[in-house]
Amino acid sequence: MAPPTRIGLAGLAVMGQNLALNIAEKGFPISVYNRTTSKVDETVERAKQEGDLPLFGFHDPESFVQSIQKPRVIIMLVKAGAPVDQTIKTLSAYMEKGDCIIDGGNEWYENTERREKEMSGLGLLYLGMGVSGGEEGARNGPSLMPGGSFEAYKYIEDILLKVAAQVSDSGPCVTYIGKGGSGNFVKMVHNGIEYGDMQLIAEAYDVLKSVGKLSNEELRSVFSEWNKGELLSFLIEITADIFGIKDDKGEGYLVDKVLDKTGMKGTGKWTVQQAADLSIAAPTIAASLDSRFLSGLKEERVEAAKVFKSGGFGDVLTDQTVDKAKLIDDVRQALYASKICSYAQGMNLIRAKSIEKGWDLKLGELARIWKGGCIIRAIFLDRIKKAYDRNPDLANLLVDPEFAKEIIDRQSAWRRVVCLAINSGISTPGMSSSLAYFDTYRRERVPANLVQAQRDYFGAHTYERVDMEGSFHTEWFKIAKQLQN
Amino acid sequence: MAPPTRIGLAGLAVMGQNLALNIAEKGFPISVYNRTTSKVDETVERAKQEGDLPLFGFHDPESFVQSIQKPRVIIMLVKAGAPVDQTIKTLSAYMEKGDCIIDGGNEWYENTERREKEMSGLGLLYLGMGVSGGEEGARNGPSLMPGGSFEAYKYIEDILLKVAAQVSDSGPCVTYIGKGGSGNFVKMVHNGIEYGDMQLIAEAYDVLKSVGKLSNEELRSVFSEWNKGELLSFLIEITADIFGIKDDKGEGYLVDKVLDKTGMKGTGKWTVQQAADLSIAAPTIAASLDSRFLSGLKEERVEAAKVFKSGGFGDVLTDQTVDKAKLIDDVRQALYASKICSYAQGMNLIRAKSIEKGWDLKLGELARIWKGGCIIRAIFLDRIKKAYDRNPDLANLLVDPEFAKEIIDRQSAWRRVVCLAINSGISTPGMSSSLAYFDTYRRERVPANLVQAQRDYFGAHTYERVDMEGSFHTEWFKIAKQLQN
Repeated sequence: MAPPTRIGLAGLAVMGQNLALNIAEKGFPISVYNRTTSKVDETVERAKQEGDLPLFGFHDPESFVQSIQKPRVIIMLVKAGAPVDQTIKTLSAYMEKGDCIIDGGNEWYENTERREKEMSGLGLLYLGMGVSGGEEGARNGPSLMPGGSFEAYKYIEDILLKVAAQVSDSGPCVTYIGKGGSGNFVKMVHNGIEYGDMQLIAEAYDVLKSVGKLSNEELRSVFSEWNKGELLSFLIEITADIFGIKDDKGEGYLVDKVLDKTGMKGTGKWTVQQAADLSIAAPTIAASLDSRFLSGLKEERVEAAKVFKSGGFGDVLTDQTVDKAKLIDDVRQALYASKICSYAQGMNLIRAKSIEKGWDLKLGELARIWKGGCIIRAIFLDRIKKAYDRNPDLANLLVDPEFAKEIIDRQSAWRRVVCLAINSGISTPGMSSSLAYFDTYRRERVPANLVQAQRDYFGAHTYERVDMEGSFHTEWFKIAKQLQN
Repeated sequence: MAPPTRIGLAGLAVMGQNLALNIAEKGFPISVYNRTTSKVDETVERAKQEGDLPLFGFHDPESFVQSIQKPRVIIMLVKAGAPVDQTIKTLSAYMEKGDCIIDGGNEWYENTERREKEMSGLGLLYLGMGVSGGEEGARNGPSLMPGGSFEAYKYIEDILLKVAAQVSDSGPCVTYIGKGGSGNFVKMVHNGIEYGDMQLIAEAYDVLKSVGKLSNEELRSVFSEWNKGELLSFLIEITADIFGIKDDKGEGYLVDKVLDKTGMKGTGKWTVQQAADLSIAAPTIAASLDSRFLSGLKEERVEAAKVFKSGGFGDVLTDQTVDKAKLIDDVRQALYASKICSYAQGMNLIRAKSIEKGWDLKLGELARIWKGGCIIRAIFLDRIKKAYDRNPDLANLLVDPEFAKEIIDRQSAWRRVVCLAINSGISTPGMSSSLAYFDTYRRERVPANLVQAQRDYFGAHTYERVDMEGSFHTEWFKIAKQLQN
């Protein structure tokens, strides 16, 4: 009989395969299982090919579970929702008190909390662990966001520290996030921020292409250049790559042949809904979600374009000549300033939830583990980490002295880009809602007094005053009628 | 023993009192009940004072229920949530098969659907009825949105038709909305639209006051003037009233003394969350919710204002001289065009839910019953009704020929106002997100192709092409690396 393995992994789609191979490669013998057994054989074969890695395949759940050393730890990488419950049912039948199940999928945090409770009834431990980095990250070093049982985290901390992405100046991209569903929640907001980043990059592309008339080659070179400075990040890097790729099925560049319809899973939607629930303004992330919704209405957009073309205006309103170099520099600054707003929203959302749930999350630590491995990895995250190092109670990233200075330096360019887009008839919903967020947040007096006066007028909702304490109600209607007589 | 009354009403806060008096005044004898009995006596006293109306008060639930003719119909006006369940429990103990309970509060539609099922188990009928118009509307004619049991609706249709607001060219502001929780859902979106209207008006005020330097007297006169044209509406009317009212506790105008913090109940939040759930872009409504959230952060805003003032810019960035008359006209047009976008979002949200739930809601009918009684009542709603009369399957209000023409006429002014605000450093999140919504929706090609290419790059999510059918995946990373070698 073979000696027991250190850990198990169930669910061998590409993410699961890659994470299992990553773990094996780091020297931890691993058992793997999948309901469709051909995936097991495929993974075993890959382990052999990728250097005789210590990976052992099992075709039935019982022998899979029994092959793991106690207390057993099994990572699941299956589709969120019902498949997770099904897998838990299958595996837990053979598990013993003190064993642990880890869900590595993009699960709704409340499902994790429900399951943690159910598992605890069986004497089992449970973790919900966000895994970011896509297939490539899973294989070579993802960012890991484990939340739930701290005891369970401790069982496998040595594994996670080696499996996670390694960043030279800040260590492995993993930390114990917090209790309950906090790991899933933080991963969800990570994805919301990712939506924002992608939308802002798409808008930069749109302005440069539609107004600046940059070619794909020029775009490639601009994004490559940007990737050497403050915008250095995975998403900017792959964007530069994308612009360089020719269509393999026809003339020209592939990006121009890709249909302008963006798909989505659930995490962006959840982020926006949670923001509303927690009274956190997150307009940049919401704008990126709305843009995906509107992108999906391709047929309606084609029809609408006809209606408004016949009304006298085309896709791009003006044919203004722009100074290309100046435009490129302005767009870079607008993108960066907008990005600060988007991260400020995401971080404040995490903090609000942390307070609601008593999770005690460390925002700077989250920025640190996002510096490598994950989709939003960027040099920028180091600045966020430092901002929270300077002041863990920072009310908003916007008022960190370093970020404030960066915004002040960039605000003129930011305003120029948004207005140029508006006057060109192309929309930059992410950049303009970021700017509106900034201009609202930094304003001592906003016109909310009128809204509150209206509410008191028609609904007797009362109002506060700027010059004295208390709650006031005015008979606006009566007074107005008296004035008219 | 007194003859039985026609209907009962439980829950005698101001809304409940007013609606009961309204019903009595229309000639329908009504029984009223409240747990705190002093409210009962207060209502009875008001009924006497307001013209010996046929209203009968009861201090205990049993005699209250028994005083009503069978099948009994009782309207509840109590706080949404647990108090509704409590009231149902109290009343249903004395009710009989075929009797009906109506919830007139701002209830979450799923609660109504749950209760309808529970009631049905007891042989009771149930309606969730949105009531809009505030206290004044309840007394003199609200807009009513009853949904649930059609049989129950028919019991009291004669009452509702008389109690609702009456609009000369389109009849009483009530219609049977549809099954289940549709009445509550429609009322929820009505409130979301109301948020949007109020925010857009606040932004118009802000631009006119902060950039145009209009005094309160000038503002009063501008809004009064606007209330004679395309913007004619309850909210514009009360806004004009508000600007005319002097502070009774000091110098100057009251609106300037009202603290810039806006409160809220739950319906705006629910609207935004439902929009995300149904993949409907509703950025104008979301911007109004976010503005309320940010208004609540008064202390943070005061601190942020200091940070950025010391960074070299104040509350309003420029002291540009503007042509007042031209600005006023531009702002009116921007407000109107933005309003079209906001209603387009709300209507599409209702339609999406109607399809999901099989409610078969009639959008034109909803616009008709909102023409009077409710907070968003406006001449504008008649245009919406006509748009859906012309084409019940209209994909979006923006492409109705009349609205499209109005937008085309106003788009230059709209862009001028948003850019003026941006360059002045004041935010118009509602107007700018409306404009972005319009510019995205009317655009044949949006930059979503890049986002989808990114998703395929890091997550193998596949993409469609503009020039051929099918689902495609490209090994972007591999090709890019080959290109670099």
